[in-house]
Amino acid sequence: MNFLTDEKLLIVGAAGMIGSNMAQTAMMMRLTPNICLYDPYAPALEGVAEELYHCAFEGVNLTFTSDIAEAFTGAKYIVSSGGAARKAGMTREDLLKGNAQIAEDFGKNVRQYCPDVKHVVVIFNPADITGLITLLYSGLKPTQVTTLAALDSTRLQHELVKALGVPADKIVNCRTFGGHGEQMAVFASTTLVDGKPLTEIIGTETLPLEAWTELKGRVIQGGKHIIDLRGRSSFQSPAYVSIEMIAAAMGGKPFTWPAGCYVNNGKFDHIMMAMETTIDATGVHYAEIKGTEQEQKELEESYKHLCTLRDEVIAMGVLPPIADWHALNPNID
Amino acid sequence: MNFLTDEKLLIVGAAGMIGSNMAQTAMMMRLTPNICLYDPYAPALEGVAEELYHCAFEGVNLTFTSDIAEAFTGAKYIVSSGGAARKAGMTREDLLKGNAQIAEDFGKNVRQYCPDVKHVVVIFNPADITGLITLLYSGLKPTQVTTLAALDSTRLQHELVKALGVPADKIVNCRTFGGHGEQMAVFASTTLVDGKPLTEIIGTETLPLEAWTELKGRVIQGGKHIIDLRGRSSFQSPAYVSIEMIAAAMGGKPFTWPAGCYVNNGKFDHIMMAMETTIDATGVHYAEIKGTEQEQKELEESYKHLCTLRDEVIAMGVLPPIADWHALNPNID
Repeated sequence: MNFLTDEKLLIVGAAGMIGSNMAQTAMMMRLTPNICLYDPYAPALEGVAEELYHCAFEGVNLTFTSDIAEAFTGAKYIVSSGGAARKAGMTREDLLKGNAQIAEDFGKNVRQYCPDVKHVVVIFNPADITGLITLLYSGLKPTQVTTLAALDSTRLQHELVKALGVPADKIVNCRTFGGHGEQMAVFASTTLVDGKPLTEIIGTETLPLEAWTELKGRVIQGGKHIIDLRGRSSFQSPAYVSIEMIAAAMGGKPFTWPAGCYVNNGKFDHIMMAMETTIDATGVHYAEIKGTEQEQKELEESYKHLCTLRDEVIAMGVLPPIADWHALNPNID
Repeated sequence: MNFLTDEKLLIVGAAGMIGSNMAQTAMMMRLTPNICLYDPYAPALEGVAEELYHCAFEGVNLTFTSDIAEAFTGAKYIVSSGGAARKAGMTREDLLKGNAQIAEDFGKNVRQYCPDVKHVVVIFNPADITGLITLLYSGLKPTQVTTLAALDSTRLQHELVKALGVPADKIVNCRTFGGHGEQMAVFASTTLVDGKPLTEIIGTETLPLEAWTELKGRVIQGGKHIIDLRGRSSFQSPAYVSIEMIAAAMGGKPFTWPAGCYVNNGKFDHIMMAMETTIDATGVHYAEIKGTEQEQKELEESYKHLCTLRDEVIAMGVLPPIADWHALNPNID
């Protein structure tokens, strides 16, 4: 019954549907025996912890606390779902204001109590923005903070499975980039379907252009679709995938679905967004995104949308002007 | 990415909180690539399936359906949480009537569509009764049907962790037997705490008799406590543990916490209840329960309580009189 590491994993927002699933997932994956659950809502947090104790996982040291100092001190890996949940009818952006403040507090707690943390995964929406705020206030390096963006790509894969009748394992390298919100850029040119480029299938009888356009719409509305079907926000998939991300940062199987990360490469500047990434024990690393001219244009649009959101947060006073970011976090150029 | 088996696992009630967690747990444990999710509530079921597709588990063939014939046909292993959930203020017994009928239908579906099923785990409450009804109507052998009872024992372990300050791994062989409801028999004499019999600790300053009595009460009310804390029935622990049970039946690690199973040994007759059991690829096998005179008396009380429940179900007409059981299921003596 070996673990990947024995360093402390902190799960923030552990009383919620996502957080409690993350805790169970992390324990099942045997990432580390030292898992701490934090949530300000003490009774529900205790309930989650009790449930996990009743699972009788062997060799674990599961703790829980509503005390911030106790939770964060010594944490080497953190996954946070500790924002407000999206309700039916809300866009991710509606959440901006409240969750921006939560992200600021979260980043400051990291800086104060666990500046030696190795990796932080942020998944509360709009994750591109909350991740950025977390990065800036935590003082961490850009390689150390990622956001959950992969679900858009896995949703693309699954929509293609349904549309084409090809098993998921034969539809590879599905990619969405840019924002995780409704302005995401859904790419076609990266995907191979049973060895054949998806771009060669789009516009044929197998997948007429109109059907592809509709499919992209379903990918973008994938989160809303779950709410419509289940009557609640998705929680199993964000929990599972975000734990896969932190597992990769711990030295497990590298995570190669797109992650949101800080980008400042001359083309996209001072922004957090989904890129072509790998997460491994050295953190997150991104590569240039390749695509058709149209795809690049959509990515540019997505980027601009994120810049607008970011500038809103600056206007709200949660983030300082970009010129002052380096002073706030010396790891940011 | 090997699986334990490639035979079909059916999860009944997969749209619910427990069932959806069971599905995720089974996929994470890599039990089999062939998992089918069944629930009569089609939209929520689709929502659960979508979430699991978005996890992008590799090499799996996950299907979902609200069609009973499609779901049950070919199933070799089944876990069913497909009853009504216990609400705040209800005892497990309050659920009896509705869930007894559901169990009868479930058993009949097994008999009609998958008589070659190898093992069935029943976890909807009162599980001792729904499991018994399932066994009788399915026509399966007593070794092939088990019910979830282990949580009472794992709750006992965790209450002892809290009371004694000893880690869970050093508190072994915690056992409750008999019914899974409020009349369960909480044993002390089986447990070793750091190598020392719990019976030698009870009544000392470390654990005065009154504290032990209160502790037993908390074990018995463990399910209610979760409802009080989380505002919902426990779902993570029943899901996880029941999947551990079916994994054992598939040939995985044997399951050695108590399971509910059919007992007819001259001392306890025509009943389903938690025994000293092992589940492995040959099914469930029980051994005689050893305990103090007082414990045996409590177990006898628990058994009698179950007999009363069983007789109620017979009076309701859901089960025939015991004399006719063999005609209903020739595997029952």
